Amino acid sequence: MDKLKEIINERGEIRDGNILKVDSFLNHQLDAEFLYEIGEEFYRLFRNEGITKIVTIEVSGIAIASMAALFFKVPVVFAKKTESINLDKDVYSGKVYSYTKKKEYNIMVSKKYLNENDKLLIIDDFLAIGNAMKGLIDVAKQSGAEIKGIGIVIEKGFQQGGKFLREEGYNLKSLAIVDEMKNGSVVFREN
Amino acid sequence: MDKLKEIINERGEIRDGNILKVDSFLNHQLDAEFLYEIGEEFYRLFRNEGITKIVTIEVSGIAIASMAALFFKVPVVFAKKTESINLDKDVYSGKVYSYTKKKEYNIMVSKKYLNENDKLLIIDDFLAIGNAMKGLIDVAKQSGAEIKGIGIVIEKGFQQGGKFLREEGYNLKSLAIVDEMKNGSVVFREN
Repeated sequence: MDKLKEIINERGEIRDGNILKVDSFLNHQLDAEFLYEIGEEFYRLFRNEGITKIVTIEVSGIAIASMAALFFKVPVVFAKKTESINLDKDVYSGKVYSYTKKKEYNIMVSKKYLNENDKLLIIDDFLAIGNAMKGLIDVAKQSGAEIKGIGIVIEKGFQQGGKFLREEGYNLKSLAIVDEMKNGSVVFREN
Repeated sequence: MDKLKEIINERGEIRDGNILKVDSFLNHQLDAEFLYEIGEEFYRLFRNEGITKIVTIEVSGIAIASMAALFFKVPVVFAKKTESINLDKDVYSGKVYSYTKKKEYNIMVSKKYLNENDKLLIIDDFLAIGNAMKGLIDVAKQSGAEIKGIGIVIEKGFQQGGKFLREEGYNLKSLAIVDEMKNGSVVFREN
């Protein structure tokens, strides 16, 4: 998605440790109108997959998934990261190790909101090592639902998450794949 | 907002401890098309306030604030609940005691995204005791921005948050005010 690449170049910041900060439009401040365009692009890519639900994980996946859901006209279900006393006991659950936060956390989805008849599009903001995505896939599979697609806004192509998921046969589409960050600029993979 | 009241009656669940669960459309599964209508209603209520940014707090405020932002055509800034090593040191911060999670947490907003020229609409899903809202107001005020409105989806009118904020002079609008939950049904305040 060319406009995404332009916005990453204009507004992204490269930090030590191969960190790409996109806080100004995706992870802290949200450019809702642009996220709406991202949602539309995911619809273009996955519209023929018979999607019944969009699954994401809190926090940064929620706005993107919600925008996509306006086009697909299906609900979003977001996996929760910590147990709240308000949440049902009857949940699918899994574990994720967060590289940025250096700790493991639990994720969970209520059994009410996913079942074996669902055809899922999983959406997230970033794909790097893929730990969060593997946790989400694990949770989604517990429901018996079929994972029809995985949509990522920014894939770090120099980490193994994308390669792993493609080898496993998932229908993974990333709107921008960053192959390298050097000398303060981002090198994108050719389409 | 009559449609909201209908949906709360149809899809909300009352639990012990005056807990109203609206997980099926607002807090875990998201009915994006209905949240879009909620965003439009907030626009109708606050469209003449010269809003430059919408402020909310992760997690459940994000989808609603993003939908509203499509109408206002301004960015959303969401306060983050935990410190990530990716986040700038240069932040406005505050503390919130969560009644549902029985613990205090920190919230923060990067100084990059709020300043004294901003006219803010603060949006959140629930208002009960008002602890999260007081924390958000504290953080917003540190920036020097003007708080032009507060939009709440569901206010628990039998708790003191709404009363406190109105007495303080805030332009608070709640789309549904629950005055009582008894015998398994919700009693709404008359408009």
